[in-house]
Amino acid sequence: MGVRSVAISACGRVLQRAFSLHSAHSTKDMENFFQLVRNIVPALTSKKHKGQDGRIGIVGGCQEYTGAPYFAGISALKVGADLTHVFCAREAAPVIKSYSPELIVHPVLDSSNAVEEVEKWLPRLHALVVGPGLGRDDLLLNNVRGILEASKARDIPVVIDADGLWLIAQQPALIHNYQKAILTPNRVEFGRLWEAVLNSPVDTQGHSDSVLKLSQALGNITVVQKGEHDLISDGQQASAHYWWLPGVLAPSQGSVIIRLSRSTGAPQPPPT
Amino acid sequence: MGVRSVAISACGRVLQRAFSLHSAHSTKDMENFFQLVRNIVPALTSKKHKGQDGRIGIVGGCQEYTGAPYFAGISALKVGADLTHVFCAREAAPVIKSYSPELIVHPVLDSSNAVEEVEKWLPRLHALVVGPGLGRDDLLLNNVRGILEASKARDIPVVIDADGLWLIAQQPALIHNYQKAILTPNRVEFGRLWEAVLNSPVDTQGHSDSVLKLSQALGNITVVQKGEHDLISDGQQASAHYWWLPGVLAPSQGSVIIRLSRSTGAPQPPPT
Repeated sequence: MGVRSVAISACGRVLQRAFSLHSAHSTKDMENFFQLVRNIVPALTSKKHKGQDGRIGIVGGCQEYTGAPYFAGISALKVGADLTHVFCAREAAPVIKSYSPELIVHPVLDSSNAVEEVEKWLPRLHALVVGPGLGRDDLLLNNVRGILEASKARDIPVVIDADGLWLIAQQPALIHNYQKAILTPNRVEFGRLWEAVLNSPVDTQGHSDSVLKLSQALGNITVVQKGEHDLISDGQQASAHYWWLPGVLAPSQGSVIIRLSRSTGAPQPPPT
Repeated sequence: MGVRSVAISACGRVLQRAFSLHSAHSTKDMENFFQLVRNIVPALTSKKHKGQDGRIGIVGGCQEYTGAPYFAGISALKVGADLTHVFCAREAAPVIKSYSPELIVHPVLDSSNAVEEVEKWLPRLHALVVGPGLGRDDLLLNNVRGILEASKARDIPVVIDADGLWLIAQQPALIHNYQKAILTPNRVEFGRLWEAVLNSPVDTQGHSDSVLKLSQALGNITVVQKGEHDLISDGQQASAHYWWLPGVLAPSQGSVIIRLSRSTGAPQPPPT
């Protein structure tokens, strides 16, 4: 796993750049952020073998969208995971493969036995990221539904983003009450989820109370609303207004895994 | 062959980084390692033409795995070989080609005449690396069996790694007593080979005696067990505990050729 020191250095550069755009933050803040990132990256040790520090599955990638699953996969590797498997539509596979020889890419997501093809890998995966570059094709969405059910049956942590959230908005029961799910909606996706789950237009967009309420309505699963300031709730905390990295990173592709790490390794919020 | 000076410099960086993680090693050790690497890399001279310093064949690359044969091939070039031919499944070929224009890629490994297609190149190859990204498809494994037999008939050195070792564990006779074979198992692959050849669970994993014993059971072919410290035996030496590069490099993809060089250019072990 020679990527770790590179990952730490790369994370450092990303944070430095982000901070340079937000000069109001103090040096101490920056050090806290560096420490957060360092805590996420597994320690480099010769005692481990490849795979022990994380085997991540990405479910997404279709005819139109190939960049998002690549960014999700390569980000997982850059912050310390050992292996990434991308499960995508047949047509997307050679393109995603060609972006990097470090990804293992399975052209199965639009096949008639997609669920079985992914299911046989699930015992080897530590977490799934569902949705980057998924699109809204019914065949793919139906296969992803089966993959989500299989993942739940195996108690595998799942981060759901992008059109994975579109699927959840159509069938919230798919993920309801599954404590190992993390949803990462942007503002539009948040509104869509809210309307699907609470049967009303969202009233206070961009407010931590809304995130708490949506999380609770989904059975206390973790919701991270991306924005200028990220809002996060696990349905327990009444106020859950954190920000971890400056919002400039929020809308960018490839932020999925950084967010996963932030949300799963969540420290205490600073006093407000 | 403009890659050699780059290769020396790159090897230097790899070693420097590796040593920086193992600060117990002395400067003298490091110089010895640099010298080892220099000895492996052919001298740059205008008297030679392309191909004289190494034409390497890589047998591997299937639907799922395309990175490993790329890393094996490009590593051969980076440490001084002139030409690399990758023989892979049809579907993997355009992807492997896309990683680098320096590789020559043959989409033949899943064809009905795969053995003939590879065999006609064998007279031009100095060594074969069998297994990176091979997978376990029966058709491919059967073709590789034929390629191994053809290589043995021509007395071509063969390094067997990854799922090439899976094949050997199924049919140890394929390679038994072939002195120009080098097996490079990790711990799991070593255990599988041991059970196949010695008909018992491996008793002292990670111990040089085990490596010696497996080598002898296979007819004194060279076995390199990769790990924190590499263990190597040609079946002759009672104790064969070497380490050449810190084990942190061991699990990484792309280490195949560095290991090939280390095992074929084996110097005397340091006094223990």
